[in-house]
Amino acid sequence: MSFFTDLEKRIAAANSLLCVGLDPDSARLPASVNIFQFNQAIIAATHPFACAYKMNFAFYEAAGPEGFGLLKESLWHIPQDIPVIADAKRADIGNTSKAYARAIFNELGFNAVTVNPYLGHDSLEPFLEYGDRGIYILCRTSNPGAADLQNLAVYTESGSIPLYQVVADKAAEWNKSGNVGVVVGATSIDDLRILRRRHPGLPFLVPGVGAQGGDLEQAVLYGRSTQRAGLIINASRQIIFASSGPDFAEAAGRAAEKLRDEINKYR
Amino acid sequence: MSFFTDLEKRIAAANSLLCVGLDPDSARLPASVNIFQFNQAIIAATHPFACAYKMNFAFYEAAGPEGFGLLKESLWHIPQDIPVIADAKRADIGNTSKAYARAIFNELGFNAVTVNPYLGHDSLEPFLEYGDRGIYILCRTSNPGAADLQNLAVYTESGSIPLYQVVADKAAEWNKSGNVGVVVGATSIDDLRILRRRHPGLPFLVPGVGAQGGDLEQAVLYGRSTQRAGLIINASRQIIFASSGPDFAEAAGRAAEKLRDEINKYR
Repeated sequence: MSFFTDLEKRIAAANSLLCVGLDPDSARLPASVNIFQFNQAIIAATHPFACAYKMNFAFYEAAGPEGFGLLKESLWHIPQDIPVIADAKRADIGNTSKAYARAIFNELGFNAVTVNPYLGHDSLEPFLEYGDRGIYILCRTSNPGAADLQNLAVYTESGSIPLYQVVADKAAEWNKSGNVGVVVGATSIDDLRILRRRHPGLPFLVPGVGAQGGDLEQAVLYGRSTQRAGLIINASRQIIFASSGPDFAEAAGRAAEKLRDEINKYR
Repeated sequence: MSFFTDLEKRIAAANSLLCVGLDPDSARLPASVNIFQFNQAIIAATHPFACAYKMNFAFYEAAGPEGFGLLKESLWHIPQDIPVIADAKRADIGNTSKAYARAIFNELGFNAVTVNPYLGHDSLEPFLEYGDRGIYILCRTSNPGAADLQNLAVYTESGSIPLYQVVADKAAEWNKSGNVGVVVGATSIDDLRILRRRHPGLPFLVPGVGAQGGDLEQAVLYGRSTQRAGLIINASRQIIFASSGPDFAEAAGRAAEKLRDEINKYR
């Protein structure tokens, strides 16, 4: 079995391209609810509508020594058939990336990971070697400063192209085991559209709708793919912080269902 | 007080440009010594020769739930006047980078951090805002695949330059609080030399000597700077794994002293 096969199955079973981001920013938790209780309630309410979950490590590391345990315990509450992505954006020199891969895949047991391409192929190889896990390489991110580097024009044999396209080309080239996808933000639809045309079968993980302001309809229209698991749309704050009151879980469930259905309208 | 002022003081006090990398790869620890005992002994033996320590988070995260505690407890054993760098290579979208910065600077109390520039300025801003901490931006890394992206030729107003130079230029531009340096590997001396000529005052953190094969003499000759704390040289495996026997700490102390003296020969 492999990540993208599992993801495809779950997409079909839940009729959903929605990836729910479990990013429990401690400053925004409802009163007298801790991260563990929060995640447990959010998972219970949202899982019928999720094709995947994504957990951004920053919010767990910021919780201090309990962070690792919180990650692990939250994973237990996610039904086995829903893949979980470690949004860690890691990359380091080879022997160090090996330790990160071990931590994320073996110690914690995540099904997929996000990685940063700046250090090049050998920094990602220790992740890529896990053929049964998914590796999403940051390509065109959703934040305002993304263009600082990612949209620089780079000389290549076939002319001048933006750096993020070079990264997508390399992602496709490094994809020897069929386990590679790319992160492409919904906040820059032109870039997303160009990337999809250039790589019709490359799986996209698309953040940036909701709180970050990306256009959902266009993200789905231009990001969708004929390939299995070719597109998943992540939303975090828009769902998990739909309400800050005692009805936070219910509200998250409703927000997830609504967003899933909206995505399906455009598929 | 600020990181580079503290670092400058320690460089003078220890007459050393040597940064010791505390990267306790569990596969290489001496028999019946755990990470905590290992770090404690290594610190006791090497601190007279170190201007700084650098702890790569991967080796602690790979230790599982104890990783965070190991980081924190190891920090207690480092004398107060020796700055400690979190080699975390982090970067994420703004609200997430804020959580990483909080984890590294507030929860753990590190004096400096390494960050990845691929996501652009707003991803690093939450780190840069800590004016009393040091921010080393990955520029030209020491691993074999570094050139995959970092040496791509980029169009700029002033002609075509490699991506790593664009990053160094941006690092200098983003350095509003005098708290920014760059990571430049010793494995690519030509690039290091070009960078030093281009940015005479920018602090360099130079890994890649020792196990990675960079030339120490050239790294010091071409990397040195007239500016305070303008150059520190990191070595990890070469020092901490100098012996795998029961004399590991003694051997590490000797290796650190020897490397410090060798660096000083070329200063």
